[in-house]
Amino acid sequence: MERRILWINPIGTNLFDIPMKENLNKVKDKETILDVVSFEKGPSHLEYQVYEALVGTDILRTIKNAEKQGYDAAVIGCFYDPFLSEAREISNIVVTAPAESSMAIAISLGHKFTIIVGRKKWIPQMEENLLRYGLKERLASFKSIDLGVLDFQNKKEETEKRLIEAGREAIEEDGAEVLILGCTAEFGFYRKMQESLNVPVIDATIAPLKYAEFLVDLKRLAGIKHSRIGKYESPPYTEIKAWGLDRMFNIPFE
Amino acid sequence: MERRILWINPIGTNLFDIPMKENLNKVKDKETILDVVSFEKGPSHLEYQVYEALVGTDILRTIKNAEKQGYDAAVIGCFYDPFLSEAREISNIVVTAPAESSMAIAISLGHKFTIIVGRKKWIPQMEENLLRYGLKERLASFKSIDLGVLDFQNKKEETEKRLIEAGREAIEEDGAEVLILGCTAEFGFYRKMQESLNVPVIDATIAPLKYAEFLVDLKRLAGIKHSRIGKYESPPYTEIKAWGLDRMFNIPFE
Amino acid sequence: MERRILWINPIGTNLFDIPMKENLNKVKDKETILDVVSFEKGPSHLEYQVYEALVGTDILRTIKNAEKQGYDAAVIGCFYDPFLSEAREISNIVVTAPAESSMAIAISLGHKFTIIVGRKKWIPQMEENLLRYGLKERLASFKSIDLGVLDFQNKKEETEKRLIEAGREAIEEDGAEVLILGCTAEFGFYRKMQESLNVPVIDATIAPLKYAEFLVDLKRLAGIKHSRIGKYESPPYTEIKAWGLDRMFNIPFE
Amino acid sequence: MERRILWINPIGTNLFDIPMKENLNKVKDKETILDVVSFEKGPSHLEYQVYEALVGTDILRTIKNAEKQGYDAAVIGCFYDPFLSEAREISNIVVTAPAESSMAIAISLGHKFTIIVGRKKWIPQMEENLLRYGLKERLASFKSIDLGVLDFQNKKEETEKRLIEAGREAIEEDGAEVLILGCTAEFGFYRKMQESLNVPVIDATIAPLKYAEFLVDLKRLAGIKHSRIGKYESPPYTEIKAWGLDRMFNIPFE
Amino acid sequence: MERRILWINPIGTNLFDIPMKENLNKVKDKETILDVVSFEKGPSHLEYQVYEALVGTDILRTIKNAEKQGYDAAVIGCFYDPFLSEAREISNIVVTAPAESSMAIAISLGHKFTIIVGRKKWIPQMEENLLRYGLKERLASFKSIDLGVLDFQNKKEETEKRLIEAGREAIEEDGAEVLILGCTAEFGFYRKMQESLNVPVIDATIAPLKYAEFLVDLKRLAGIKHSRIGKYESPPYTEIKAWGLDRMFNIPFE
Amino acid sequence: MERRILWINPIGTNLFDIPMKENLNKVKDKETILDVVSFEKGPSHLEYQVYEALVGTDILRTIKNAEKQGYDAAVIGCFYDPFLSEAREISNIVVTAPAESSMAIAISLGHKFTIIVGRKKWIPQMEENLLRYGLKERLASFKSIDLGVLDFQNKKEETEKRLIEAGREAIEEDGAEVLILGCTAEFGFYRKMQESLNVPVIDATIAPLKYAEFLVDLKRLAGIKHSRIGKYESPPYTEIKAWGLDRMFNIPFE
Repeated sequence: MERRILWINPIGTNLFDIPMKENLNKVKDKETILDVVSFEKGPSHLEYQVYEALVGTDILRTIKNAEKQGYDAAVIGCFYDPFLSEAREISNIVVTAPAESSMAIAISLGHKFTIIVGRKKWIPQMEENLLRYGLKERLASFKSIDLGVLDFQNKKEETEKRLIEAGREAIEEDGAEVLILGCTAEFGFYRKMQESLNVPVIDATIAPLKYAEFLVDLKRLAGIKHSRIGKYESPPYTEIKAWGLDRMFNIPFE
Repeated sequence: MERRILWINPIGTNLFDIPMKENLNKVKDKETILDVVSFEKGPSHLEYQVYEALVGTDILRTIKNAEKQGYDAAVIGCFYDPFLSEAREISNIVVTAPAESSMAIAISLGHKFTIIVGRKKWIPQMEENLLRYGLKERLASFKSIDLGVLDFQNKKEETEKRLIEAGREAIEEDGAEVLILGCTAEFGFYRKMQESLNVPVIDATIAPLKYAEFLVDLKRLAGIKHSRIGKYESPPYTEIKAWGLDRMFNIPFE
Repeated sequence: MERRILWINPIGTNLFDIPMKENLNKVKDKETILDVVSFEKGPSHLEYQVYEALVGTDILRTIKNAEKQGYDAAVIGCFYDPFLSEAREISNIVVTAPAESSMAIAISLGHKFTIIVGRKKWIPQMEENLLRYGLKERLASFKSIDLGVLDFQNKKEETEKRLIEAGREAIEEDGAEVLILGCTAEFGFYRKMQESLNVPVIDATIAPLKYAEFLVDLKRLAGIKHSRIGKYESPPYTEIKAWGLDRMFNIPFE
Repeated sequence: MERRILWINPIGTNLFDIPMKENLNKVKDKETILDVVSFEKGPSHLEYQVYEALVGTDILRTIKNAEKQGYDAAVIGCFYDPFLSEAREISNIVVTAPAESSMAIAISLGHKFTIIVGRKKWIPQMEENLLRYGLKERLASFKSIDLGVLDFQNKKEETEKRLIEAGREAIEEDGAEVLILGCTAEFGFYRKMQESLNVPVIDATIAPLKYAEFLVDLKRLAGIKHSRIGKYESPPYTEIKAWGLDRMFNIPFE
Repeated sequence: MERRILWINPIGTNLFDIPMKENLNKVKDKETILDVVSFEKGPSHLEYQVYEALVGTDILRTIKNAEKQGYDAAVIGCFYDPFLSEAREISNIVVTAPAESSMAIAISLGHKFTIIVGRKKWIPQMEENLLRYGLKERLASFKSIDLGVLDFQNKKEETEKRLIEAGREAIEEDGAEVLILGCTAEFGFYRKMQESLNVPVIDATIAPLKYAEFLVDLKRLAGIKHSRIGKYESPPYTEIKAWGLDRMFNIPFE
Repeated sequence: MERRILWINPIGTNLFDIPMKENLNKVKDKETILDVVSFEKGPSHLEYQVYEALVGTDILRTIKNAEKQGYDAAVIGCFYDPFLSEAREISNIVVTAPAESSMAIAISLGHKFTIIVGRKKWIPQMEENLLRYGLKERLASFKSIDLGVLDFQNKKEETEKRLIEAGREAIEEDGAEVLILGCTAEFGFYRKMQESLNVPVIDATIAPLKYAEFLVDLKRLAGIKHSRIGKYESPPYTEIKAWGLDRMFNIPFE
């Protein structure tokens, strides 16, 4: 039962595409076919809310195209989960994103989790997401390691050192029992952290990929899939067509 | 002390521009110069999250242009408060939006408020906003009158009847002491509702306009203005320029 | 990559073992080997907290034995998730249970969920579990259909009718976008409900089985498994042995 | 459109009346006529709840008298917001107070705020007020500078130093993006703090004055004023008169 | 071990003094000596917040006098718990009040409780008290029977009928397992309600009397008494004396 | 009015029975007859959730036997309050436990309390209990003194020193106004702590004993006793008998 999954790096650089795919290939199910794409234009990271806003249309277009091309699932590869609700509103395929997927795993691994971010700047929006997801009560703390998205893979040694240090503090001072890496670009560090700290460390790329596989299976085997009423109710295509939104934004809404 | 305020109808139709301006002129301060704009393309309402996503770049561009042109404030005229955080992230002028502004008023007018929306579809996102704003505890209820954004001004009699009916139920059954109209296109009805129901009714166009005036005055007189650290910290312009985001998206970020 | 999973019906009757296994075989992964067991003594359902208490030792013994026998995961088949924390405290294999697993799925399928229970009696404990899991904010409502655990499969037609009715009310009146069946004995009804109501319906047997497969894979592929500090920290075996608890309670703690 | 506003220092000393008025005159609107009064008897500060209780009748009498004299608004000048609900219950004019007004501003200036108080003693009551106002989620922290109400203006240099130090800690350690001065007697320090710390600092005298102007305008222009049902419903004057409460307490209730 | 307890009806009528004492004598411990007082002036009920404000000084004076006269405890006999914090701030004896005492009992009698009030008007303040006490989560609902404080004993039959009806609805529709009578003037009805409804009904006069006995015993036997730091920290008597507050308000603060 | 109360040390050692009884005799009411029992088998402390599970049946059997023998109340002597709900479900006598009883006292003694535990391991379960009891908002903090249940009475000097140190930190850093000793084996230290720290310290053995006396009196004098619907609804004895649960588990359920 083959599953086709599209990982979207929602940024204007393909810098992470190959190494991320290599990493994900190690943990994907053997029946999963994984593709990784990024955008032709746009910011190279999404540390600011305005950067997210700039890639909104590209994310939605890419997901609708994936649906047309027969993908079973798409992953929006940024821990802010940008445009996740919007994507589900207009698509019938499975769409996942790192923060929500990490929660779906973390809630069964321990009492409280700490999210380790790059910069303090990221915390307000992530805290708002936790509130929206209803999971604020399970948060032990946020910890920042004072590095940017583009630093993690460039300064691997320093990143690893700071991640382990932040994780240790979270465990000893904040009561964390589970650690979550709050950025997809923090991929590749979780194994070493698990060995050093002896607690589960949820990698923000593994979580949404595996959760996507899980949801695809639930949909195929039991027909359980995201609700199309309320939050994820679609706009009527007649309206979209009447307004010409598909051509205007080059998105195959139908 | 003249204040220049730009009201943005973040939709691809100028349908509401003139009547809304007429209505707002009745309540604006005499030293406020108000302009109203809408977009050249895009959906005619923002009932769906995906419609909001499509106008994100236009909202940000319009606000940065307003800043360049010397406006003191901009209002994002949709009760979902779309891209309000993003706008504050990149601009130094005052930016307001209906939901947040209505809260800033409602908290002193009574114990609990009910938000009257057009369709049930709108409730999940608005409830998430209340959670993010931290004001869920003050909510009495949401009430839906089963009309769309484009119906309110077209079917005034029916709209008025349903608004009053929904308000009465909110007061009698849900403990509402204050009513908030959860859509800018519900403008013009609040006076009649206040007379019929004898409780304060917050119009979603008046609230952000007057709150914008209020914040402009606070800024001018006391230098109190939105924080530029954390949630509203700006991206460095060097980065924006290096990536060519200003030309790419035609937004004067500097 | 074969997975061995033990489903435990934590009751003193094998009434559900065969039909439940047949149902689960339809949705299990092809590499999953599923066994279903129940206890030799004890109550025939766990509607009362005291009934749960009576089977605590049996649940823990069965799970430790499963671990010895090489199972990869065990499922505690009751929506109260009885002794789930205790089981994780003493075992290294994956342990899941219906309520927590259903949450892990529901959070990505819609804004709010309703849990449909058999009797009002069940609600307080389930509500406490939601509080402990931190997910109370996502609850739309509980609905009771006034039938007991032993009625569902005996009165299928009536059960189906009431489940659909309760689901419809939850959607129309409480804002539910997702339905969760709050008892494992409500198995077999979700498909018909999905067809009638057109929203996702999470079956309380499918959720913990599939979530167990998911967690087993995460553990194997990425070494991500439940934390052994804090809430799930094990008692020292030296202490258990010194006190003779293993022989006393016939549980292979080591 | 002249507005008459009465600032009430609810204490038995006129110590703050003149300097506070001078300070407020710098930020009031040009059409605002501001008067400042204090009481003839009573405690010189309200650091203790019992001191507040002692001035309750004086606050209510002063506000009802202000209403008779044609004031448009009254401000209760203490950050505990003492008898704010009671005042609204019996008066038709606008009544504001520092804590609530500061919230109405702070919610749009940043993600979280810290309230800087004089003594730890003040925190429990202020925290209870935040809970009642429904805004606890937006609080970053309370910080105490270990000075009393009567110290701030007497030891300006020390006060300023400690305020800046407390503000810096709130920003760096607690995630505050906005600072609120939790005592009206902390007036005059906000400008220097804003310059030093580069975040908005809400002065507890400016906030309720400007918010009063704002609400007076809303009332005049749009008829939007505080609700008179539920929390702010008035007692019937027939009852008051029958019991002789007006003469008994020398308050013009009618 | 004799205990002297003063019940204060904080109103300007002695209407309830004798019948309430007779009722309380049936449930007081045999070593408790109970006195009941009311005030010489003031409103005849406290349904409005402003009425509470008017009796604040009298409540505090009465409690300080009781302390001087050797009482072990005082009860503030109104379900709003007016000036309870203030009273504890200045006195060393035990002070209780109905709402808090009812909570101290209700939390062990069932999952959720409903508070039955006379008028809807009372709900906002009582809900705020629940928030302050931290017990909102345990509330099933408020129910109003549309009768005033002075009606309950005058229209006993009607009151009893409505209380039972409201209780039944609370149980059947709101999930209440415990009922609390939200007014001291609702005394005398609980027994009949318990018989009719078969759930515990907490009488708002019994609760604070028995809780006062309980706290007096804890203080005598174990020295456990209310904290004098933070919320209940006393103002320094030197300050009170310097300002002449004791003579000014005729309260023996020392 | 004699009260017979059974204190249950729910562990397989009588180590604490005599000293605890001696301590409790100092604070019990003179009409209380106190017996203390422990179990013949089982763990010597309940620091782990699995240890609790092992004594569940023994707790329930002991309480039902106590009921048969005419006890008026039983106390489950462990701060996790193990099987408190289950015990109330099947018994008509008063059942109390330390955590819940401590809350019933603490809520009137100060604004916030700190619970001082032996090990960090205990915190997650106790925090979950606070959530279930609805009192999380009143918690200042948990403090751990890094000692086990069996250390407290063996290393009295060290225990006392650490308890006082932890209490001091809680007061100075966390805003605690009341301290609660989070383990029954921490008995005997509260007096010295109260003298040193000058705040109320709730002993986890005194609280449930005195609360049990209080509830027994409420039941006798006013018929107010725990609800038998919803959370504490009993299973029907016909079912228990049909399944043979009484003989199977040697518990006199009838």
